[in-house]
Amino acid sequence: MPVITIAMRTGRTLGQKRELVAKVTEAFVGTCGGDADGVWIDILEIPAEHWGIGGRLQSDLLAGAGPATPDE
Amino acid sequence: MPVITIAMRTGRTLGQKRELVAKVTEAFVGTCGGDADGVWIDILEIPAEHWGIGGRLQSDLLAGAGPATPDE
Amino acid sequence: MPVITIAMRTGRTLGQKRELVAKVTEAFVGTCGGDADGVWIDILEIPAEHWGIGGRLQSDLLAGAGPATPDE
Amino acid sequence: MPVITIAMRTGRTLGQKRELVAKVTEAFVGTCGGDADGVWIDILEIPAEHWGIGGRLQSDLLAGAGPATPDE
Amino acid sequence: MPVITIAMRTGRTLGQKRELVAKVTEAFVGTCGGDADGVWIDILEIPAEHWGIGGRLQSDLLAGAGPATPDE
Amino acid sequence: MPVITIAMRTGRTLGQKRELVAKVTEAFVGTCGGDADGVWIDILEIPAEHWGIGGRLQSDLLAGAGPATPDE
Repeated sequence: MPVITIAMRTGRTLGQKRELVAKVTEAFVGTCGGDADGVWIDILEIPAEHWGIGGRLQSDLLAGAGPATPDE
Repeated sequence: MPVITIAMRTGRTLGQKRELVAKVTEAFVGTCGGDADGVWIDILEIPAEHWGIGGRLQSDLLAGAGPATPDE
Repeated sequence: MPVITIAMRTGRTLGQKRELVAKVTEAFVGTCGGDADGVWIDILEIPAEHWGIGGRLQSDLLAGAGPATPDE
Repeated sequence: MPVITIAMRTGRTLGQKRELVAKVTEAFVGTCGGDADGVWIDILEIPAEHWGIGGRLQSDLLAGAGPATPDE
Repeated sequence: MPVITIAMRTGRTLGQKRELVAKVTEAFVGTCGGDADGVWIDILEIPAEHWGIGGRLQSDLLAGAGPATPDE
Repeated sequence: MPVITIAMRTGRTLGQKRELVAKVTEAFVGTCGGDADGVWIDILEIPAEHWGIGGRLQSDLLAGAGPATPDE
């Protein structure tokens, strides 16, 4: 029954997404019970220019000086 | 006032989306009242490799053996 | 596979929600195919003071003069 | 701590998004306190054919006669 | 940078939520890299009468006969 | 047409929410154009025990030692 939405920056490989879905499902079932088939995950890939942190676009933070961005 | 977000797999035609929006709006107004103009819908199209079910990517489930996926 | 999130104002009865879920599921399956069991819906009930329209809280719009609010 | 998700129609420039992120962050910190670095914003760009208003696709409303659409 | 939203049924303990947040953060960082401090999670607790599966309220499915619900 | 969802921690006053909605609407219209009436905002109030940062519940971070939390 949980629906887990992962909004993350573009750039991961298919392999990383495969592992991410497996591990997050495991994390949910292992702590909150239920059945893996009842865990749905959707990944929203969002480019850096559509993320804002501290009032700035992440793409700008990555391009130049500025506070470190949660850069993953 | 309702905002209805439909996260669904890529692959429907424009015609299906047109009908979907009409029918879902009808469903809301017919059961919860209010005015059709006050019903906003947004469709998030998500590819199969960004859906996870039972710990597996839906793209993998569709490509090979494995439990039937809510395959629409 | 679709996850349909209905963010709506508080105040509907259980019966309305029962019908809403049935009709929206029907609307999806009837236009986009797939199986009803593969349609998940979650309802987010949001009070009028947590909705904003035209820069004003809906609770304020409902309490006093002001443009008609999509009042359902 | 707030996560502010802005679901809007495609078509804005990078400059508009830059300003939007700055001003919305300012709006939050100025009214609700906290630190700008603790305000995360994500922009979901949605094409007109994936928005529904009054039971119609926004792309159809924009293409032909019909009630004015919140056309921005 | 990821924002992970976990929409789940009401009923978990604080301890389960503590572990869930720890394990999901670990799952993300372990597969997609980045820093744990850059992983934000929000939990949306949704009662059974606000979940719909196969056109029925989950609360109705739990109360009476009917197909097994992803009952966690 | 934008729908702006503000997921924030519980604890703001009605007056802060009133101002927040006004200022965020202004921020959108001022940078991206369109009409204030076409800007919908919903506020999701989420308690500290339902926020996770760096793998820990925000309520735990607020209660004891630990890295400063984006504490607003």
